[in-house]
Amino acid sequence: MDEFELIRRYFLRQLKSPVVATGIGDDGAVLRPPAGKELVSVIDTMVAGVHFPESMDASDIGYRVVAVNLSDIAAMGAAPRWMTLALTLPDAQADWLERFADGLHEAAGEWGVQLVGGDTTRGEQLVVSVQMTGDVDPGNAIHRSGAQAGDAIWVTGTLGDAAAGLRQMSDESQDAFLVSRFARPSARVDVGMALSGVANAAIDISDGLVADLGKLLEASGVGAEIDIDCLPLSESLLEAEDREQALRFAMSGGDDYELCFTMRSDQKPPDLACAMTLIGRITDSTNLLCRDQGIVVPFEDSGYRHFQ
Amino acid sequence: MDEFELIRRYFLRQLKSPVVATGIGDDGAVLRPPAGKELVSVIDTMVAGVHFPESMDASDIGYRVVAVNLSDIAAMGAAPRWMTLALTLPDAQADWLERFADGLHEAAGEWGVQLVGGDTTRGEQLVVSVQMTGDVDPGNAIHRSGAQAGDAIWVTGTLGDAAAGLRQMSDESQDAFLVSRFARPSARVDVGMALSGVANAAIDISDGLVADLGKLLEASGVGAEIDIDCLPLSESLLEAEDREQALRFAMSGGDDYELCFTMRSDQKPPDLACAMTLIGRITDSTNLLCRDQGIVVPFEDSGYRHFQ
Repeated sequence: MDEFELIRRYFLRQLKSPVVATGIGDDGAVLRPPAGKELVSVIDTMVAGVHFPESMDASDIGYRVVAVNLSDIAAMGAAPRWMTLALTLPDAQADWLERFADGLHEAAGEWGVQLVGGDTTRGEQLVVSVQMTGDVDPGNAIHRSGAQAGDAIWVTGTLGDAAAGLRQMSDESQDAFLVSRFARPSARVDVGMALSGVANAAIDISDGLVADLGKLLEASGVGAEIDIDCLPLSESLLEAEDREQALRFAMSGGDDYELCFTMRSDQKPPDLACAMTLIGRITDSTNLLCRDQGIVVPFEDSGYRHFQ
Repeated sequence: MDEFELIRRYFLRQLKSPVVATGIGDDGAVLRPPAGKELVSVIDTMVAGVHFPESMDASDIGYRVVAVNLSDIAAMGAAPRWMTLALTLPDAQADWLERFADGLHEAAGEWGVQLVGGDTTRGEQLVVSVQMTGDVDPGNAIHRSGAQAGDAIWVTGTLGDAAAGLRQMSDESQDAFLVSRFARPSARVDVGMALSGVANAAIDISDGLVADLGKLLEASGVGAEIDIDCLPLSESLLEAEDREQALRFAMSGGDDYELCFTMRSDQKPPDLACAMTLIGRITDSTNLLCRDQGIVVPFEDSGYRHFQ
């Protein structure tokens, strides 16, 4: 058995997904998406040493590449269904592959997502791409471009943990919660599905709240005012960092994979286990203003711009 | 404008595809596949220096990565519809990207395939993955596993050209036809669609006729006898190589991206511009036998095993 036979063995765990007629092992997979739905297709690539430390555990790498795609599916308000994997790696060590596949299947299994195909190739550097497909009721996909002046701006979970966790990953003493927030982000799939047809706009926070909210504002042609005192910060983050640094991580740190969404101010967000925090409102300007201890300043002047 | 803005600019050429509701620019693309169809999903990765020479022209790289995916779609008997791109590259030079995007859009445009999303990342080595989705009438996808004893075995086009072309790519004097057969393979999409619901089994020839036919035989639990004198060889190949080497390339060279398919021996292949050649028949053994100038030997003993 050559090494790529070995790889296939690790990835051949088939769920019983009603949408998969033929999975891994042919020239292509055959899928039967539910009738009357639109499909949502997302893709995300992670490169070792660029998007995660080269020393990160293989099962976390597998988990994370699925989670970041689930997060994109969630931001569109879709239900994730199936995925394909492109894995380029310098060598194929059985224990690494087994752990990678464990993490990948764990994240996918949480939402019933079936791996239906892939391509494994040899390269100098570990590069992992997952392409994921979900479905949504026609017209109900949530776009970045739908925010309206007066909308309330909400975020899920807490912000800034992943950036603090990433910084701790090379430390001897680590906060397990913060590190896991980087290594194993919680994709807000249930929130996204509940917001489908309800939220006016959504984006997932991969590059940091300000950067990603900025994309949403630009796509929608609107501005926003956010209340820095309202940003949800975890106790772990506030124990690990002073308030200034915690806010910098929350505003600009990235890798949180929480959702930022806007909805009419008279609507309530869905009642789910995941915390949701009102952080501001959409305005009819095109600026992003921050209210910090009662004083409103443009974000550029807020002191939280630079990620340190 | 940063370099990844630049990349987005090159990839933002939108076709008017009726299946694409939202293309590039959101967290995900929104697709409207035709009602009542099954979908076929394929993925193929190419790594510079592994799957093609690092010196290969960027437009050929872009063309080829789409063509190899079209070929997988064709082998399943599906009609290609949309694709996503994962592009990892050491640097983002405008002229390289423009040529890459030209080749990619050229191959996709031949079959009306829309690029609906992608992720561009920085890495040490050029790695390109395309994931493509097509559709097919329910139950009509062609599998590797359907070959029946007595079936005729057909191949499209000519075999061995790409291996000869690859060998010539570093030479000063090149046969343009052979080199183009490696750099810009012709995916047999029209043949695949015409074979949907007709052929019993199909596979595309990426690793070489014997290797890929072997996978088809294994999946179907059958054997085959192929007539080496019948293998379709181009005039260019026979001018560039002696007959022995031409046959080695045809049998084991790979990269041809022709289709190998089986159908009932009393059926005729579709009448299309692409040449189709009867090369043998499926048997109820599990061996692959070769008939060479009247003598039948197991492939392993045929002298064409080793790709030189």
